[in-house]
Amino acid sequence: MMNQSRVVIENICPLVEGGIFPIKRVMGEVVHVEADIFPDGHDIIQATLLFKSKNWQDWKEVRMKPVVNDRWEAMFEVSEQGFYHFKISAWVDHPLNWQHGIERKIDDGQKVTSELLEGKAYVEKIVPNADETDRQYLTYLLGIFGDENQYQPAITEAVSKNLKNIFKKHPDRFLPNESPEYSVYVDRTKALFSTWYEFFPRSASEMPNVHGTFKDCHRLLPRIAQMGFDVLYFPPVHPIGEINRKGKNNATVVQEGDVGSPWAIGSKDGGHQSLHPQLGDLDDFKNLIHAANEHGIEIAMDFALQCAPDHPYVKEYPKWFKWRPDGTVQYAENPPKKYQDILPIHFETEDFKNLWNELLGIALYWIDCGIRIFRVDNPHTKPYFFWGWLINEVKMKHPDVLFLAEAFTRPKIMHQLAKQGFTQSYTYFTWRNSKHELIEYMTELTKSTQREFFRPNFWPNTPDINPYDLQSGLESVHLQKYFLAATLSSNTGVYGPVFEQMVCQAVPGKEEYLDSEKYEIHHWDWYKNNKLTMLISKINHIRKEHASLQQTNNIQFCNIENSQLMAYYKFDNNRSDETLMIVNLDPYYKQQGWVQLPLQELGLREGHPVRVYDLITDSSYIWNKEWNYVEIHPSLPFHLFKIYK
Amino acid sequence: MMNQSRVVIENICPLVEGGIFPIKRVMGEVVHVEADIFPDGHDIIQATLLFKSKNWQDWKEVRMKPVVNDRWEAMFEVSEQGFYHFKISAWVDHPLNWQHGIERKIDDGQKVTSELLEGKAYVEKIVPNADETDRQYLTYLLGIFGDENQYQPAITEAVSKNLKNIFKKHPDRFLPNESPEYSVYVDRTKALFSTWYEFFPRSASEMPNVHGTFKDCHRLLPRIAQMGFDVLYFPPVHPIGEINRKGKNNATVVQEGDVGSPWAIGSKDGGHQSLHPQLGDLDDFKNLIHAANEHGIEIAMDFALQCAPDHPYVKEYPKWFKWRPDGTVQYAENPPKKYQDILPIHFETEDFKNLWNELLGIALYWIDCGIRIFRVDNPHTKPYFFWGWLINEVKMKHPDVLFLAEAFTRPKIMHQLAKQGFTQSYTYFTWRNSKHELIEYMTELTKSTQREFFRPNFWPNTPDINPYDLQSGLESVHLQKYFLAATLSSNTGVYGPVFEQMVCQAVPGKEEYLDSEKYEIHHWDWYKNNKLTMLISKINHIRKEHASLQQTNNIQFCNIENSQLMAYYKFDNNRSDETLMIVNLDPYYKQQGWVQLPLQELGLREGHPVRVYDLITDSSYIWNKEWNYVEIHPSLPFHLFKIYK
Repeated sequence: MMNQSRVVIENICPLVEGGIFPIKRVMGEVVHVEADIFPDGHDIIQATLLFKSKNWQDWKEVRMKPVVNDRWEAMFEVSEQGFYHFKISAWVDHPLNWQHGIERKIDDGQKVTSELLEGKAYVEKIVPNADETDRQYLTYLLGIFGDENQYQPAITEAVSKNLKNIFKKHPDRFLPNESPEYSVYVDRTKALFSTWYEFFPRSASEMPNVHGTFKDCHRLLPRIAQMGFDVLYFPPVHPIGEINRKGKNNATVVQEGDVGSPWAIGSKDGGHQSLHPQLGDLDDFKNLIHAANEHGIEIAMDFALQCAPDHPYVKEYPKWFKWRPDGTVQYAENPPKKYQDILPIHFETEDFKNLWNELLGIALYWIDCGIRIFRVDNPHTKPYFFWGWLINEVKMKHPDVLFLAEAFTRPKIMHQLAKQGFTQSYTYFTWRNSKHELIEYMTELTKSTQREFFRPNFWPNTPDINPYDLQSGLESVHLQKYFLAATLSSNTGVYGPVFEQMVCQAVPGKEEYLDSEKYEIHHWDWYKNNKLTMLISKINHIRKEHASLQQTNNIQFCNIENSQLMAYYKFDNNRSDETLMIVNLDPYYKQQGWVQLPLQELGLREGHPVRVYDLITDSSYIWNKEWNYVEIHPSLPFHLFKIYK
Repeated sequence: MMNQSRVVIENICPLVEGGIFPIKRVMGEVVHVEADIFPDGHDIIQATLLFKSKNWQDWKEVRMKPVVNDRWEAMFEVSEQGFYHFKISAWVDHPLNWQHGIERKIDDGQKVTSELLEGKAYVEKIVPNADETDRQYLTYLLGIFGDENQYQPAITEAVSKNLKNIFKKHPDRFLPNESPEYSVYVDRTKALFSTWYEFFPRSASEMPNVHGTFKDCHRLLPRIAQMGFDVLYFPPVHPIGEINRKGKNNATVVQEGDVGSPWAIGSKDGGHQSLHPQLGDLDDFKNLIHAANEHGIEIAMDFALQCAPDHPYVKEYPKWFKWRPDGTVQYAENPPKKYQDILPIHFETEDFKNLWNELLGIALYWIDCGIRIFRVDNPHTKPYFFWGWLINEVKMKHPDVLFLAEAFTRPKIMHQLAKQGFTQSYTYFTWRNSKHELIEYMTELTKSTQREFFRPNFWPNTPDINPYDLQSGLESVHLQKYFLAATLSSNTGVYGPVFEQMVCQAVPGKEEYLDSEKYEIHHWDWYKNNKLTMLISKINHIRKEHASLQQTNNIQFCNIENSQLMAYYKFDNNRSDETLMIVNLDPYYKQQGWVQLPLQELGLREGHPVRVYDLITDSSYIWNKEWNYVEIHPSLPFHLFKIYK
């Protein structure tokens, strides 16, 4: 291929896997693009960053600037949901080269009559597109550049700033080179800043031993809103299979009255587009969605693609399941373990196109009912390309829909799901306890290319995970864990009633809740408040008021010479909000140490007084030094300082 | 797009710029491919690396192996010149999954009658392709897998190693995923191991003040061969322009008899496809090429794409030059500097297709005359995509042709030329003098992705560069510099007569030779030998006999606690040859220190005696310890040890 352009554009970032996948942003965020751009020889080049929302007809353009060593940069802000595209165009800029050359020749005392004639040609090309003022000036130049008697004014104007600006305003894009197009997916801000609360609606009844309903949930909404949560996530609300239903504590033999696991979806009452009759009907569900919205809460639905043996699909679409040579349908297994209450979907079926479309139909159905957030159950056990296709199909129609990947698995698999389009992901935060582990993990999440596509959501617990450190039942650990989740990450969530009431009994030796709500109805005292609920509320409300806590990537760990104390500084993009968090990781003992203020990040010199205001306790301190003494007791194991400079 | 495959293949390496450009190898080298490969869920996968020379009909295949954390690897050796392609294919392996599952169920005491029937189906598929022995075995399995009375032998065979091997030999590639194809360019070994000598053939006469000829060069060949050089590079041998010819020391006013710069190509005697009449005619040149070959020397020609004002192209193809408004042709300039003896080619011409083809024609013409190596003059002042096209066109017909880029410019530009296809490149070695600088530069060249596409050629000097450290005229510096060039890099070259005779006078304050041979004929005593020529010969011959010195990337610097002493260990791929170099960088004083043997690399434990044999002096030492004392005097500023274990 004969490409005559003289400019190379390469090593563009940020890209995910060379641009196969879009990078991610939320509205109002900035895309900072860099690239290596250079021509042959020594000519002056110009480079421009072109960008557009998929909805726009035309590209917008921002001129790039050289950084160092042939590296160029420019940035743009994204202001609409959905796909954006960007590309780079660059060219050898002949008018600017001409001006650069003539300037040096004039300084050298050379006669530049011929050069002025060259300049005339560049000026002539611009005249038709210039505005009135510029046109007058350019016409004047055309007059003097060819006139031997006007040589002095001609050379003065030839090197003028005025002419340079006009050349820049009307670039002569001669033989430009253009990069491929890359994409950005822009979500609404909830993708980056969300506070999740999970409970089982069937446990929502005020009365013990009664199956809760959507209607019961209404009375809980004010409390959840008051605590500062804005996403309410329900485990599956569909009919639960009766064949091979699991009993309490995952028993394979069911007892009279056992309600089964909500993740074993489908029965004679319907499948993924039906609701569990004891929770209520579609109107009840829509009413609840509506009522939640009025409290500023969105309901996140569980998207769990598996079927109970009595799911209507099994009879209707036998090809979508695997059949064994003995004529029985293949249940889920991880040999030698068997999960007889669940049939995995056979994604290798030759009928996969119908299957994929049906599954997409489930999502679209609930979107039509008002759902805008899906928490996807075990996405890593379904094909990645299926998710890429499904999420893209949904987003093309509904760019405001968010998907949280429930994948606690190997790193590359979690990343792949994020690349395929999942908005947020569960993380390893649940198992990161020491200062070293937490700093290392946060650094990986926020300082590597993961930041471009993987949005963490930090959960201290889930119905599946009762982590060893919470099994202590200690209030200090619960306080610390929630604080870390909510201030390290701007997306956070908690499996609520269990956590608030510090329920900690586990299946011995396992990170599983004993008497798990997954297999039975619980009765909670929904009005009980304690120190933990008060502090959760406080932290959540502080998050709502402080932009520095509404994103995850702008974090800087601060030195503090005590392995039980961890300090980190966060800031919003224009540094109008800056916070400093200090946590005591020791659940039993008071810890003290000296924390180093990040003076350079703060733009301060030592000696400048800084007021740190603890947003939790409303106490405030003046710090004059770079290193400052702190002392933290496990009874309130953190400071959340707002920094005033 | 609905891609039903369940396997992701990504982050493949080695690639250059995501695979846009080929990686480089020479014949006999290995391509070690790695990739992240994983399925959804927990199934067993298989991955295979497919590769082929462009000349082959079919792909060859080597099965990949897991390394760690979803990373897989495999390698292949390249054995033919020209382009190779490789790609990865991976699939969920159902027969192996079946075997894995049935094994666990049997261990768990489960009855696997239905599973055996599944296995029967997998076995049936293989029978038609199996060899006789396997077919007999498989037929036996088909008999027992469905026979309740043969349950015991059936389960024994189901989990057998034998069956597993058959499954691996005849993989069931169900819904495979395939990576894009990537390429490798394979050169002959000279691309990686070459020893260059440069001189001006016009200075080859035995008599002073007489213009040398190709015939004169014949008598120099035995000496150059005896010194161990295998590439003889001539500055341009074409007619030299008479218009605006440069005088001695780059004077703009020429004196009677001045010969001009050979880089100002073209006159009434012809252009790039002609020879300078005073050097001889085409037969003379072909004879010289032939005679050189008989001495094991290849002649490298200068490919310098610029024209003197009287080059025939200027009249024949006026569009290929830039014309100023005053009707004169544009000469080369870097304002305010002017180079009136040279016209740059106007690559921006609308007639570029004819231009490119004509320039390609020059290369092809000399290739037809027997030339296989081009040293390209200032390639960075011509468009990169032009080079990519030209080199590719040449290599498609003549895969044995090599191109050395003479580009001393910014790093990204030098890399771009290498990416576009240059075989070798000049480097910054010429200006790397301290231990720190040398180690840092070698690390960059050999441990980053540069190693995949950028082959360095280390030159202590060139006609354009009389580096400050050689201007000292010190023998120790010349010895040290040649030794470093020839043992750090497997490609090395020297602008010979000047270097050997330690000519060091420079234009004051510049790294340019005074009375440069670029503008005048020199008379050399071609038979003079000195310590430097003897040691250059010795080093060159040692290089020829030691595979560890015939490549650049297998280098490991060794600790030695003296900033003037530098030690490095080199090895060939199967470690059949291992050498240890120790250099004294101090030109004046003896230096001593303790060098650490790289025991781990050598596969040795401390205490194991190692014999180090100095190939320069034929002295030898037994080292029992990890750290060993050395003392080096500037009069012979290096050890070149062969290591015997």
